[in-house]
Amino acid sequence: MREHANKKEFLDFHRKALGKVRHIPTVNIRNERQLAMAYMPGSLTACEEIRLDGQNVFEYTGRANRLAEVSNGKRVFEMGDVGPDAVLPILEGKALTLKLFGDVDAVPMAIHAETAEEIVNFCMAIAPTVGGINIEGIGSPDAFYVEKALSDVLDIPVFCDDRQGTAVAVLAAIKNSLKLLGISIAEARIVVVGAGAAGLASADLLLRSGARDLVILDEGGILGPSRTNMNVFQSEIAARANPKGIEGGLEDALPGADILVGLSRGNTITKDHIRRMNRKPVVLALSLPEPEISREDAVQAGAFIYASGNIENSNALLNIHVFPGIVRGVLDVRARRISDSMLIVASDALAAIIDRRNLTPDHIYPKFLGSETSPRIAEAIAQAAINEGIARIQMPEGKVFENTWYRLFGAMEHI
Amino acid sequence: MREHANKKEFLDFHRKALGKVRHIPTVNIRNERQLAMAYMPGSLTACEEIRLDGQNVFEYTGRANRLAEVSNGKRVFEMGDVGPDAVLPILEGKALTLKLFGDVDAVPMAIHAETAEEIVNFCMAIAPTVGGINIEGIGSPDAFYVEKALSDVLDIPVFCDDRQGTAVAVLAAIKNSLKLLGISIAEARIVVVGAGAAGLASADLLLRSGARDLVILDEGGILGPSRTNMNVFQSEIAARANPKGIEGGLEDALPGADILVGLSRGNTITKDHIRRMNRKPVVLALSLPEPEISREDAVQAGAFIYASGNIENSNALLNIHVFPGIVRGVLDVRARRISDSMLIVASDALAAIIDRRNLTPDHIYPKFLGSETSPRIAEAIAQAAINEGIARIQMPEGKVFENTWYRLFGAMEHI
Repeated sequence: MREHANKKEFLDFHRKALGKVRHIPTVNIRNERQLAMAYMPGSLTACEEIRLDGQNVFEYTGRANRLAEVSNGKRVFEMGDVGPDAVLPILEGKALTLKLFGDVDAVPMAIHAETAEEIVNFCMAIAPTVGGINIEGIGSPDAFYVEKALSDVLDIPVFCDDRQGTAVAVLAAIKNSLKLLGISIAEARIVVVGAGAAGLASADLLLRSGARDLVILDEGGILGPSRTNMNVFQSEIAARANPKGIEGGLEDALPGADILVGLSRGNTITKDHIRRMNRKPVVLALSLPEPEISREDAVQAGAFIYASGNIENSNALLNIHVFPGIVRGVLDVRARRISDSMLIVASDALAAIIDRRNLTPDHIYPKFLGSETSPRIAEAIAQAAINEGIARIQMPEGKVFENTWYRLFGAMEHI
Repeated sequence: MREHANKKEFLDFHRKALGKVRHIPTVNIRNERQLAMAYMPGSLTACEEIRLDGQNVFEYTGRANRLAEVSNGKRVFEMGDVGPDAVLPILEGKALTLKLFGDVDAVPMAIHAETAEEIVNFCMAIAPTVGGINIEGIGSPDAFYVEKALSDVLDIPVFCDDRQGTAVAVLAAIKNSLKLLGISIAEARIVVVGAGAAGLASADLLLRSGARDLVILDEGGILGPSRTNMNVFQSEIAARANPKGIEGGLEDALPGADILVGLSRGNTITKDHIRRMNRKPVVLALSLPEPEISREDAVQAGAFIYASGNIENSNALLNIHVFPGIVRGVLDVRARRISDSMLIVASDALAAIIDRRNLTPDHIYPKFLGSETSPRIAEAIAQAAINEGIARIQMPEGKVFENTWYRLFGAMEHI
């Protein structure tokens, strides 16, 4: 990794933050009577009620608001395999944002796990403690296997923020870009560079949202029937994409493309690549920590819209906007899982945060500190879960709104 | 379990407390700059430092103050196998007390695990996230296997509060009882009823502290060479106990006994049993939630000192006094493990909280809300770890005192 100019400042911040989240008691113990309530025999009474009816665990414990934030540190952005010790600050950063913007108690769990099976076993074991599980930094194709294996057996939502969070962010950014281009998603030609966890998930959600002319590629070129070294997840997407049957590499995919989504590696796209695209090219260069192409180069080459994961620039396209709201929403109604249509609803809510009259090429994606982002996504997700019949808690529309917004603004007041 | 008179009150308390601990941010994010520090790319910088030197994880994350609080719910007091869902309120109760009295971030982890091996695998996986692991409610002999298996391979302390916490509490209570009896531990005749996790650990620590005439028994009678159905842990203790070779049951063990330690099942000891003991019998009836014999019955039968786990009575002999201080101490110096001699030091510190001039038969064990309990135990444990060479952080005696006391009183100020 390139040495960052602000290294000392960042490390000082981490030394001070020491974990970024910590515990606070929700009740105090001022006398023996209160200790008896909180610990012994009070907790045995709650224990007995849960034994009689497992659903009571949501009434008497913190399970309903607790998320497991799991990683083995095998695939951490461009750093690759950093291991569980080194992935911890990243998980804690996620826990902080989930608390600040979603009021979720996300428990960092950096684990020793060599295989996808070991990650699955760990998640199966911890499931009774949490209302949902997020897996990240485990790489592809493990992310697919793990998510699929767990979703099939657990009755709590299992996410992979690298996949679903990114896909929702990409879809929202593309929806707003299309409004400025004045074309529909079905008319757009979209090229997704990167066929890992984030790339495949984004391509999948785009196809489910009506994209037709979509090409996806990785270092080996365009995914398609002539490729022999694809995993099952890549093959499945490839079969639904690339209707024109284009073969070759990036040079072959780009002519006529309206939108380029980079979810690959830093500095792999050149000005010349951008010049091959349609007029008014939309460039989402989302590799972290370095984008596929810099804003300067993309704009010089004629990019109409440019977005990257750089927090401090405009169009900072981070899934951090997405995830606190999604998790808040599913936890609020105790959803049993999360569906693709819920993700699409979340992307609509995210895109709609920018009023159409305020859309500009430099403002297709909400500013990070828009305080409405989380509650709007959460409300949409909660309502969608109820509509799909996968919520444990039912409530009318107005109540969903009230519940979500009051909770989040109430929590934000304290900080 | 017997219906508790205060059931509704206890459940209302749990419904309000919702987990008893929750997260709070240690830092806020007010602008994009702060988000960059806390999340991206700031956390990648911390990640890189940890990858270069694993010990940096203690500097830049919350690991140093985080404890895993693990149970599969297989053996929860007299309730037996309640499973992971139902054990959660008990783990959260422990997390609350560890926060309030030890300023420790104890993460409840109620897990699906059928075997000791599965518990070991889970703990091995989660180890990189925490500074220590506490295992409880898993029963005997699993508790021994798990603790041994993990202590052999992990370089963080692994506890079993049912074992070590109880043993320290029992040893402290016996030390103070002996002062009132005017005899030494080597002269006392001690009968331990119950050869599970807590009984064996208490017998072991008593023997290591100088007890000689100690007899331990379970439902099958006195442990000794004539017994054929002991597990390896029972055999090991039996070989060091019972020097007079007494055989038989409780009736045979009690004549001449000074101290009876009950760690078995409620209502299993009668007045007649107490009457067989030496004059001035000391009765520690510690089964939960019901003691082996009630205070009234024990006193009627002549008990000189009586203690039980009932929080609201005098001599409430709970390991809740012990554990926050022990964990605080080992975390403060980042101890690699916890030794028997550290446990003995902790029991000395606990016993010494009651000044000898204030010792009475109704006050051999500190009141629960003595604010010095945790810092005194923590200071003793931290210093012992340094002396034994198993602390990662070295500091002089005065600094240990300052560190521990300031931290705990600082934390308590906020609540």
